[in-house]
Amino acid sequence: MKCQMIFTGTELILGESLNTNSAYLGQFFSRYGINIDKVVTVGDNRVAILKALQEADGDIIFINGGLGPTEDDLTREALVEYLGLEEVPDEKSMEQIKEYHQSNEIPLLKSSLKVGLVPKGSVVFENKHGSAPGSLVVKDDVSYILTPGPPRELFPMLENMIGPYLQQKFSLDEVIYSSTIKLLGIGESQAEEKIRDLIKGTNPTIAPTVKQDGVHFRITGKGSLGEAETLVENLKKELLKRLGEYVYGENEELLEEKVAELLKKTGHQVATAESCTGGLLASTLTDVPGSSEYFKLGIVTYSNEAKMTELGVSQEILEQHGAVSEETALAMLEGLASKTDASIVISVTGIAGPSGGSREKPVGLVFTGVGYCGKFMVEKNIFKGTRKEIKRMVVQNILFRLLKQIEKEEKCNDVC
Amino acid sequence: MKCQMIFTGTELILGESLNTNSAYLGQFFSRYGINIDKVVTVGDNRVAILKALQEADGDIIFINGGLGPTEDDLTREALVEYLGLEEVPDEKSMEQIKEYHQSNEIPLLKSSLKVGLVPKGSVVFENKHGSAPGSLVVKDDVSYILTPGPPRELFPMLENMIGPYLQQKFSLDEVIYSSTIKLLGIGESQAEEKIRDLIKGTNPTIAPTVKQDGVHFRITGKGSLGEAETLVENLKKELLKRLGEYVYGENEELLEEKVAELLKKTGHQVATAESCTGGLLASTLTDVPGSSEYFKLGIVTYSNEAKMTELGVSQEILEQHGAVSEETALAMLEGLASKTDASIVISVTGIAGPSGGSREKPVGLVFTGVGYCGKFMVEKNIFKGTRKEIKRMVVQNILFRLLKQIEKEEKCNDVC
Repeated sequence: MKCQMIFTGTELILGESLNTNSAYLGQFFSRYGINIDKVVTVGDNRVAILKALQEADGDIIFINGGLGPTEDDLTREALVEYLGLEEVPDEKSMEQIKEYHQSNEIPLLKSSLKVGLVPKGSVVFENKHGSAPGSLVVKDDVSYILTPGPPRELFPMLENMIGPYLQQKFSLDEVIYSSTIKLLGIGESQAEEKIRDLIKGTNPTIAPTVKQDGVHFRITGKGSLGEAETLVENLKKELLKRLGEYVYGENEELLEEKVAELLKKTGHQVATAESCTGGLLASTLTDVPGSSEYFKLGIVTYSNEAKMTELGVSQEILEQHGAVSEETALAMLEGLASKTDASIVISVTGIAGPSGGSREKPVGLVFTGVGYCGKFMVEKNIFKGTRKEIKRMVVQNILFRLLKQIEKEEKCNDVC
Repeated sequence: MKCQMIFTGTELILGESLNTNSAYLGQFFSRYGINIDKVVTVGDNRVAILKALQEADGDIIFINGGLGPTEDDLTREALVEYLGLEEVPDEKSMEQIKEYHQSNEIPLLKSSLKVGLVPKGSVVFENKHGSAPGSLVVKDDVSYILTPGPPRELFPMLENMIGPYLQQKFSLDEVIYSSTIKLLGIGESQAEEKIRDLIKGTNPTIAPTVKQDGVHFRITGKGSLGEAETLVENLKKELLKRLGEYVYGENEELLEEKVAELLKKTGHQVATAESCTGGLLASTLTDVPGSSEYFKLGIVTYSNEAKMTELGVSQEILEQHGAVSEETALAMLEGLASKTDASIVISVTGIAGPSGGSREKPVGLVFTGVGYCGKFMVEKNIFKGTRKEIKRMVVQNILFRLLKQIEKEEKCNDVC
């Protein structure tokens, strides 16, 4: 089963838009065990599209973009010309287009109606998030698939309609199934060391990558749909057994969502005192809907003065140990705890850079304090990266510590 | 002058990496007035690369990726096979590779040395950020250009060597010059209305787009290098004359950087009290290096309780008008001003969603207060988007207001 993709869009050729559909589709076809042979991108130009079709070669020619109402939407026209087919209206799409124009009191132009046309003899894939339907037409044993360009229209159509259709049509008995676990608090090579024997396997495989939110292990298995899933899930269980203490989530899960879920479940409330992260910790904790349930108070004490007036950090501590020190992180924590009844208090002070570092206190040096039911602990770390990267890494690190702490304590006793 | 691009890389085909080089190159060639006709991506596969070369058509065939030391780096081999040329060592590259291995005490393998080879008769472009040199070889009036894949190696090579070389070689007398102005505080159609007569021009052209950080007008001119620049800069002056009050920056400039620059220049200091943005305003203000010069204090009062204890907002106001109201925004502002001597105080309260909205107070309703040298003003806005989008839009809106306010006051008097 060979497949070629053709993208149409002058904005892609000129580099005004990044082709994110291509990456999505690459992964999509991989999952179904369909090999992509070649990817071609041409402008919104009839001749260029026709030439790309003539040169195309494969069992499936997947074509994306150029199905809209404007004059430079030429993809469907070029395909029917190339195949020598007629265009016919898809009744369901036509109805939707007419309804939409009526209810929004927009005059119905001929150009609006052309969006509802498909090559004669097509299987039609309804567009639930826009006007232009997808379609599949077969000629000389080659399947030509037309699809709309906008990701929010394309992606659900792929997942809910085109994927299942292809699987049945081509009796795709081998699919690819993937799942990713995400780790923090451990380096890539250290994590790999713990699963060295497993990483040698060929089905499923384990692919490690380092991302901004930690080390990812992507487990990928091949087989029939059920088989591939079982292979992957079994290996994942083994990975979780060995690396569980570092794992914070799977696939699309965000660390802050996991923390939020656990905070809501346990009834804990959080307050933060930030220096070098400048409010990013509070902002990340409140990115999750419903965060007012657990987020009590945040204070950004960027200056020494603010650390003294808002958190009662003594001038002595600041002078003796400096604003970036274990002692200051602890004093910030104590000051915060004294002004809120949140069961969890967090403090952070450090040097985000790019300047302000020294030999003893380099850029990236960060002290983070967590107070959990009255027990205060300060941790020292050195992060490497740009100013914004360091801020993000510090926040990830704190959230991970929090997650593990709550998970651990939850087993012992109730909320303090 | 026609050009085709060929990208090699299985990770691109599988969708594991996004092809950002393609977008960069599209813009690069546009600038030199070179039309890209087609973009082809194939995997790391000798046969596929050969086939792409056979089908290629243009005065320039630009080939990117696959010049490294591993076995799946096959691009140069495929090109010399296709053209019937020999590979020869580029002396300068070879020396660099040997030196690098010696000084890092890495054994020098044959595979490491293959990176320094180029097609015989090539013009060589030195790689100042990696090992594999770029090269250009001409056969039958077609220029074949080989370039390394990593962006940090490719982009400087394009700008500093390949661009100037092509310009001279092909006497490219027509280049494209672009510049973008960025606006906030005005909608796309309203802004277009003010420049309707200018937007009809064909050289330079004006292309409007709406991005997360406001409305962008991209001005693009064609001509000789000096001509194109003059055309664009003159039109930009006219745009700035008509729209200047809404403009916050050009090209890559960030709003927070402009604000930071102005704060430092004027000596103002800022304190923030945030509810719905949850710390994002403070975090954005402190994203800029050196922000400790102007950022004094931030308070995230997410709960009503925190609004009362930290900012002295009265229970009466919260009960009578609600936490999301002009009155609360004003009370937050007053409370903040009373605990800091910052010359600028900012408050924000609103509904970020997705839940918590009502008919009278919908999701996206936000009250923002700015206190400037003792004068307090509250503004009401309704933003549309996801929770995170609304947070970002609110922050952009506040920063823009701040920028314009300081610019205006700066003309009248000193810092209060």
